[in-house]
Amino acid sequence: MSPATSLQQAYDRAAYPLTGHRARNLQVLKDALSEWEDHQDSDIYGSGPLIEDFQAKMATFLGKETAVFFPSGTMAQQIAMRIWSDQLGVKRVAYHPLCHLEIHEEDGLKKLHGIEAVLLADKERVITLEDVRSMKEEIACLLIELPQREIGGQLPDYEELVAISRYCRDKGIKIHLDGARLLEVLPYYQKTAAEVCALFDSVYLSFYKGIGGIAGAILAGDEAFTKESKVWKRRHGGDLISLYPYIVSADYYFEQRKDQFPKYCEDAKELARYYNECRFFATRPVEPVSNMFHVHVQMPKEKLEPLLLSVYEATGVALTHYLRDDHNGAGCYFEVSIGDRYAQVPKESLKQAFHILMNELI
Amino acid sequence: MSPATSLQQAYDRAAYPLTGHRARNLQVLKDALSEWEDHQDSDIYGSGPLIEDFQAKMATFLGKETAVFFPSGTMAQQIAMRIWSDQLGVKRVAYHPLCHLEIHEEDGLKKLHGIEAVLLADKERVITLEDVRSMKEEIACLLIELPQREIGGQLPDYEELVAISRYCRDKGIKIHLDGARLLEVLPYYQKTAAEVCALFDSVYLSFYKGIGGIAGAILAGDEAFTKESKVWKRRHGGDLISLYPYIVSADYYFEQRKDQFPKYCEDAKELARYYNECRFFATRPVEPVSNMFHVHVQMPKEKLEPLLLSVYEATGVALTHYLRDDHNGAGCYFEVSIGDRYAQVPKESLKQAFHILMNELI
Repeated sequence: MSPATSLQQAYDRAAYPLTGHRARNLQVLKDALSEWEDHQDSDIYGSGPLIEDFQAKMATFLGKETAVFFPSGTMAQQIAMRIWSDQLGVKRVAYHPLCHLEIHEEDGLKKLHGIEAVLLADKERVITLEDVRSMKEEIACLLIELPQREIGGQLPDYEELVAISRYCRDKGIKIHLDGARLLEVLPYYQKTAAEVCALFDSVYLSFYKGIGGIAGAILAGDEAFTKESKVWKRRHGGDLISLYPYIVSADYYFEQRKDQFPKYCEDAKELARYYNECRFFATRPVEPVSNMFHVHVQMPKEKLEPLLLSVYEATGVALTHYLRDDHNGAGCYFEVSIGDRYAQVPKESLKQAFHILMNELI
Repeated sequence: MSPATSLQQAYDRAAYPLTGHRARNLQVLKDALSEWEDHQDSDIYGSGPLIEDFQAKMATFLGKETAVFFPSGTMAQQIAMRIWSDQLGVKRVAYHPLCHLEIHEEDGLKKLHGIEAVLLADKERVITLEDVRSMKEEIACLLIELPQREIGGQLPDYEELVAISRYCRDKGIKIHLDGARLLEVLPYYQKTAAEVCALFDSVYLSFYKGIGGIAGAILAGDEAFTKESKVWKRRHGGDLISLYPYIVSADYYFEQRKDQFPKYCEDAKELARYYNECRFFATRPVEPVSNMFHVHVQMPKEKLEPLLLSVYEATGVALTHYLRDDHNGAGCYFEVSIGDRYAQVPKESLKQAFHILMNELI
C-alpha cells in the first residue's frame, strides 16, 4: 500500500474528518432530488423553468442582468475570456500565475481560443493595482480570483480591489471575477455578493466548492454577454440536453449553506490557531480571510505521515487526506477548507488531537 | 397560444404518445439511482471505479481498446476530429452536409479547433465510396454517421461501408463513426457493435437517443487516442469532478434497452406502413432501416395540425409533438423514433387513429 493511499484511507475511515461538508457519494444527489416531484420536467438544451428559474435567481443574487448555468467553471471562464477578447479585438488577457486557467486546464485557453496570458504578481502574493498599472502589454480582460486559492486563499484589501476595478474601467479593460469561492470571502469583506460583483463585468461562481453541490457553475453578466456565452457553450459541447442533476443539487446546497459561511470562516480561524501553536506548523495566511487556508509543515512527508496516522488512530480526528511536497524543499503542505464537518467534531477530541501533535513535536 | 405549443401540449397530455420511451422528467434519474447504494463514491475527475468500470464495459461492447465517458457527443466528436487532424497534420475533415457538426454545433469545429470541413454527397442521400474517391481535398478524417439522422435515418449497404473503410485505410485517412444511434442500426446490418466499429478508428455512441439516458456519450478507440482525448476533455471543460449522474443513467438504460432494438426496428416498419397508407403521407425511407424515419406530408402545417389534434382527441393516440415546414415548399414533416412507448399502445387505438386520418384525407 502506498503511503498516499493509506493517509486517504485513514481519513475516509475516521470518525471526525475535519475538512469539507460530507463524503462525495451518491447520497449527495439523492438528497437533492428528494425535494423534487418525479414528474418535474427536465430542462431541454438550456430551456425550461428548471434551468431558467435558477439562472434568474443567481443573476439576482450576483446583481447581474442575466446568468447562464454551465457544466464547469473551466468552460465558463474560457468562454468569458473569449467573448471579451473578441469584443476588444485583443487576443490577450491577464491573471495570476497560479490562476486555474494557467495550471489546471491543459492550456485550453491557448489551444482552443488562441488567447495568450500575461501573468501578474508573483506566486507568493495576490495581484495589486501596481501590477496592473505597470503591465506593458495591451489586454482585453483582467481576471481576478477571490480568494487566491493556490496561496491559501489570500485576498486583496477591498479598497485595492475597488481601485483595480476603477483603473480597468478607465482604461477600457474588462474585469472578470473568478468567484469559484465567492461566498467564502463575503464575511471578510462584509459585503453582499452583488456589491462585490458590481466591481466586475463578468462573474463565475462554482457550485461544488464551498456550496458542496455535485458540479456546475454560473456565469453572469449583461444580456449581450450571456447571450453570446450560450453560443460558445454549444460550441464547447456544454449545452447538454439535460443539466438538471447539477442544477437541482446546486440549488439545494446553495439554499442549505449560503448563510453558513460566516460560521465556516470563524471555524477556519479557530483551526488555524491550533495549527500555529504546533512546532514546525504554520498556516498561510496566518489568520485565514476565508473558510480556507494552507498548512505548511517543516518536515518531510514521510516523517509527518506516521505521526498524523497515530493522531487519527488515537482520537478519530482526521486532519487531512493528503500531503504534498513543498515547493521550497524539505517540507510539505496541505489545504484546509472548512464546511459542515468541522462543527460536528467534539471539541475535546479536537483538543486531544492537537495535544498529541504538539507533544510529539517538542 | 401558438399552434406549436398546442400540438406539444396535446401530445404531452395524450394517453398514448407513439414515439420515444417515456417523459423526460426527474423520475428517469431517480429510477437509475435507485439501483445504487447511497454510500457509493462519486467518480473524481475521470477516475474511480464508477466511471472506469463503465468505460471498460463500453470499450468491450464496441470492440475497442479503451473508451472515455464525455458529457456530450458534441465535445467528443470535435475532439476526435482534432486528434486526427493534429496527428496527420491536416486541418481538414470530411462529412455529410447534414452532419451534427455542420448544423447543430454553431461551427465549433472551426471556431475552437480551426478545422475546415469538406461536405460529401448531397442533402438527400448518404455518402458513397464514389463521393470519397472523387474528393479533391486532402483530409485527416472521414466522419460517417449511422444512420444519417437528418434524412430519416438512411444507411449505406454494409458492403459499401466496408469498401469506404478499406479505401480510407489504404489512403491513410482516419475514419470516425458518429454512432450516436449505433444500436439502432445493428438489427438491419445483422452485425454486432464490435463488428461495425472494427471498420472505424474512432467511435462515438450517445446515451440519450435510443438508449434513453439523461445525457452523455462514449468515445472509443485505441489507447493513445483515448489518452489524448482526456487531455482535450479537460481543455473543453468536460472533465467534471463528477459525471456520475449521467453514467449511472447511461448504464441503467443501456442494460434495460440494449436487446430491445430489433423490436423497436420492427415496430418502426409497422408504423411506417400505416403512414404510407395515408394519402399525402410518405415516410423516408419508405421501409425504415432503423427504429427511426421521417414522415413527409404534402399539406401545410396549418392544415394538418387541427386534423392531428382531432385524432389525438378521439383516440388518445398522439403521433407527433411538432411539425416542421418542408424544405421543398408546401408540405411539412416530422421525425419518428420508436422506443418503449409504441408497444404500450393498444392496437385497436392505433388502427382507429389511422382510420380517422385516412378517412379525413380521402
